Amino acid sequence: MRKAQEPKRVTIVGGNGLMGRFLAGRLRHFGHEVRPFGRRDWERADVFFADADLAIVGVPIDRTREVMERLAPFLGGRVPLADITSLKAPYVRAMLELHPGPVLGLHPMFGPGVKSFLSQRVIACEGRMTDRFAWFLRLIEEDGGKVVWATPEEHDRMMTIVQAVRHFAAMALGFFMSREKVDLGKSLEFASPVYRLELDIVGRLFAQDPALYADIMLATPERREAIGGMARTCVELAEIVARGDRPGLIEKFESAQRFFGAEAARSLEESGYLIDVLSERLAGRPCPGHARRAKGKDDHGDPVE
Amino acid sequence: MRKAQEPKRVTIVGGNGLMGRFLAGRLRHFGHEVRPFGRRDWERADVFFADADLAIVGVPIDRTREVMERLAPFLGGRVPLADITSLKAPYVRAMLELHPGPVLGLHPMFGPGVKSFLSQRVIACEGRMTDRFAWFLRLIEEDGGKVVWATPEEHDRMMTIVQAVRHFAAMALGFFMSREKVDLGKSLEFASPVYRLELDIVGRLFAQDPALYADIMLATPERREAIGGMARTCVELAEIVARGDRPGLIEKFESAQRFFGAEAARSLEESGYLIDVLSERLAGRPCPGHARRAKGKDDHGDPVE
Repeated sequence: MRKAQEPKRVTIVGGNGLMGRFLAGRLRHFGHEVRPFGRRDWERADVFFADADLAIVGVPIDRTREVMERLAPFLGGRVPLADITSLKAPYVRAMLELHPGPVLGLHPMFGPGVKSFLSQRVIACEGRMTDRFAWFLRLIEEDGGKVVWATPEEHDRMMTIVQAVRHFAAMALGFFMSREKVDLGKSLEFASPVYRLELDIVGRLFAQDPALYADIMLATPERREAIGGMARTCVELAEIVARGDRPGLIEKFESAQRFFGAEAARSLEESGYLIDVLSERLAGRPCPGHARRAKGKDDHGDPVE
Repeated sequence: MRKAQEPKRVTIVGGNGLMGRFLAGRLRHFGHEVRPFGRRDWERADVFFADADLAIVGVPIDRTREVMERLAPFLGGRVPLADITSLKAPYVRAMLELHPGPVLGLHPMFGPGVKSFLSQRVIACEGRMTDRFAWFLRLIEEDGGKVVWATPEEHDRMMTIVQAVRHFAAMALGFFMSREKVDLGKSLEFASPVYRLELDIVGRLFAQDPALYADIMLATPERREAIGGMARTCVELAEIVARGDRPGLIEKFESAQRFFGAEAARSLEESGYLIDVLSERLAGRPCPGHARRAKGKDDHGDPVE
């Protein structure tokens, strides 16, 4: 535990969830006082919030609005309020409506398997008087994390692709494989390490909570529409494949290739590095210093990313 | 260079391609004599094949049949003949028709970035008198590789999923991202290491040869049909998403989850390990002993896997 310059008192609503526990652990590591606030603490809520320097809401998305409404009166229009919900526009708006004090929207882009903020990103969305959160954002960066500022709308637009469409694509491939009854074990026998890497990503999805992924995909009309667009893209490309139109397929490939540009070479290099690491691990030579990660589903409402 | 028990003479047709050069390197490492055979060597072909202990065909798939036809007379019905084409049924059949001697179909499940057979798999398909290839298969295993036997049909069926549908799914996601003009650099700013891993896999595709991937997807009617099935699966799932049918989406997710079973937990654990490695690399702490991989497209006709 390090001694903080000025120890703060932080109440985490949903502090018993995995993400809440992670935040509590990092705050305590830096010398702050943390009070996890659970469902059964509403009777004594004033004790938890009256003198708090920060209140963080980290509850499942479908309970977020309701918890914010119930919480606001205890903050006395004074306590800085942040949330860590994975959708930002509606919840930053809700906090601004319900609470006249300092407001900040946050989205930690990872699940609770990690041990610190090292190499992790946290999206921050301006609400009101955000300088009141500066100490907390500094803590994240001192711990190795990176704070990325975005408007709530920009965040939500990006998450449409980064989460909803991506998870949809992985789920569709996994569901198709299940429908085709592909012998997964045998497919690994047949395949290259990069196929294994891809199957790991699809399989990883199915080690987690179906409701969580359904909620990510269904969260907004924009997400549902983008998923429809992804499906239409698959149909359009599959029609080119069905008629055996080699030049047509090459043209589509090249168009995406131009768009990826230098990103493609970077991807090849980085994935090559990871494939090497995986190959050596499969040969019984794991990278030193890499212990097995803790497993577990994020009961806070974010997938284990 | 190790001294082989019995040095063999091997002619590799397409031996100047990247995969040909890889095979030549490993054969020489084990003390064998290798003769790379290129387009301009047909005039002196008898010199290359008359006393060969093994002939390997490793040319692009669209030239494979023609090369086999032209090659067969030089083998005198005696020289063991293998190919390394990524489609097996038609080419094992072609070799059996054209050449009365020993025949073996091979498919190395990797591209030429690798330095040895370590942790790599090679599919082997029985042709005729395959004991004549035992020394070569033993070499692969001594070098750390694994030989997996399959019928040509079983191999081709598995590749429909492992290569064609998988590459289609990654291409479709990348093409959709290009169409939506997603800011890739910014998306990495926003996202978790596992998103980065997935983007690496998609980007990796676009660092490679469009014609190669088009040929993999178009190779057989079965592949084209499976790709159509994958697109229909996307549409079916997207319709559930469009009508906001949460229980319906959860049900589909759970059905794939049941199918993945224990594979899902293994995937979560293994991808977690790789995400840790990636996070540390991004923090400037790469795994010791992992040099950058050589880049390069496989001019032999297989993607860099």
